[in-house]
Amino acid sequence: MKIAIGPSSFGEASSEPIELLKKYGIEIIPNPYGRRLTEDEIIEHLKGVDGLIAGLEPLNQKVLDASKESLKAIARVGIGMNNVDIPYAQSVGIKVSNTPDGPTESVAEMTLTALLSLLRMVPQTNKKLHEGEWKKMIGRSLNGLNVGIIGYGRIGRKFRKVLSGFSCQVFIFDPYLQEDSSIDKKDVRCDTLKELLENADVISFHAAGAEEMIGIEEVNQMKDGVIILNSARGELINEEALVKGLDSGKIQGLWLDAFWQEPYKGALLKYDNVLLTPHVGTYTEQCRKSMEVSAVQNILKDLGVL
Amino acid sequence: MKIAIGPSSFGEASSEPIELLKKYGIEIIPNPYGRRLTEDEIIEHLKGVDGLIAGLEPLNQKVLDASKESLKAIARVGIGMNNVDIPYAQSVGIKVSNTPDGPTESVAEMTLTALLSLLRMVPQTNKKLHEGEWKKMIGRSLNGLNVGIIGYGRIGRKFRKVLSGFSCQVFIFDPYLQEDSSIDKKDVRCDTLKELLENADVISFHAAGAEEMIGIEEVNQMKDGVIILNSARGELINEEALVKGLDSGKIQGLWLDAFWQEPYKGALLKYDNVLLTPHVGTYTEQCRKSMEVSAVQNILKDLGVL
Repeated sequence: MKIAIGPSSFGEASSEPIELLKKYGIEIIPNPYGRRLTEDEIIEHLKGVDGLIAGLEPLNQKVLDASKESLKAIARVGIGMNNVDIPYAQSVGIKVSNTPDGPTESVAEMTLTALLSLLRMVPQTNKKLHEGEWKKMIGRSLNGLNVGIIGYGRIGRKFRKVLSGFSCQVFIFDPYLQEDSSIDKKDVRCDTLKELLENADVISFHAAGAEEMIGIEEVNQMKDGVIILNSARGELINEEALVKGLDSGKIQGLWLDAFWQEPYKGALLKYDNVLLTPHVGTYTEQCRKSMEVSAVQNILKDLGVL
Repeated sequence: MKIAIGPSSFGEASSEPIELLKKYGIEIIPNPYGRRLTEDEIIEHLKGVDGLIAGLEPLNQKVLDASKESLKAIARVGIGMNNVDIPYAQSVGIKVSNTPDGPTESVAEMTLTALLSLLRMVPQTNKKLHEGEWKKMIGRSLNGLNVGIIGYGRIGRKFRKVLSGFSCQVFIFDPYLQEDSSIDKKDVRCDTLKELLENADVISFHAAGAEEMIGIEEVNQMKDGVIILNSARGELINEEALVKGLDSGKIQGLWLDAFWQEPYKGALLKYDNVLLTPHVGTYTEQCRKSMEVSAVQNILKDLGVL
């Protein structure tokens, strides 16, 4: 039985997932490019394989059509499934799974990392000092700030938890949240996106979906000097609106770990106050290992091996 | 009445401290160099002034002798007083004060910022991506790590508090801690420095004093891949021991915000995994304002104005 690997870093954090595949006599077809595969490349990569351990490569109707004779299961390492045409996969008999619990801690920690880095301008001062320039800059404290969380699922809640050592007023907006969902009594549940945007010093995106939530109008509703954090999906925010907000000074700091196109090479590269990381929210040893082992277990079950 | 200013950034975070001085008709002599003053410069700067709002400039016997005719009060913006010869100042009738509560939150937040940045290699990936290179690196999660805190005074305790959103085992070493001091029941109080060094994945220094605690022998007692954080005093750790530990891979990450000599231009500049910040632990708008206003109140009291 053959299983192809999508994510370029599969097996790097720990050899355990690969050993698990080998234990069951699986032939492993590694990612030959060391980066995300294009449509043509993934079609070629999937020839004659029974399963795919998937990253974010396009698994649309065309790809699935070309692969459906042998392909019986796709196991995504991670939560997001926007790259997979799930209804079509199921209609042609391909089982699809993901690892919803794996990334929460790692992404929440990364979000706090980025927020604190922006508030204290750490990448800038570190770079200057490594170049021999001793330049003190006055940052901002997280204590006392209003933090808005958009999307209060697994990761949004975990991000709330890592804030618990700080005295922040938290605003939550999530139209899909049940009335009876547990929210800390001190936190404010916003009925509208506008209410959150008008109150938050920091806005962090943990929403699913790919629909644009933030355009120029919404940026204008934000407080002056707002800090925006997006580890969820590039598509949630309009890129041009971010550029305008940065140019006008409305946006004081921005972190992006998710982009409209990856690898990202766009207009935001030139801003010193934009922190950019290459979609590594889940890239901790602990998280990668846990998600990769889960994905292997999922695919072995779906292929009837486990 | 004349008051000279030591810290180059005094009044930058907020105009409130300067307005307070003006309100009482004080003539303000600003720092003319925009950086820390040398011994000769501070002697010149103090000529004919009644008080000094002090940074970390040398206020030793020679400087105090040259200034004692007019100088009646020194108000340090911050906690550390190693730069002031306090007994000698008092013996010549100069009152000395500091602002012990001001910096705690800001330094504790900065320490967590640095720790998370090192664990996730944020400055490195951000720099690469700004240069157009999309390179994912696998970091480490803070959850599950053993964190050692050396020195459990105001700042050490505040650092413990900002860790409360994470599931870390905390080890505390502080020989000056009273038996009955309140420590979280889950935390381990170490009887010896060695016990902390052998158990901690992360070691953070919040000790007072200038005596060297960490040499080559102590680095060798640490766990492989240790992360060291020093926002307290450069002198606590031997620089050569750090270089050796980094070269051997024993030390995986290091943050320094306090140095043996400032501005720092030493051997650690060349390491990518050494995060360097120019002594900005207290540099948040909130913290600077609060400490500067406190220092002004202290000096006005000591000069009999308030």
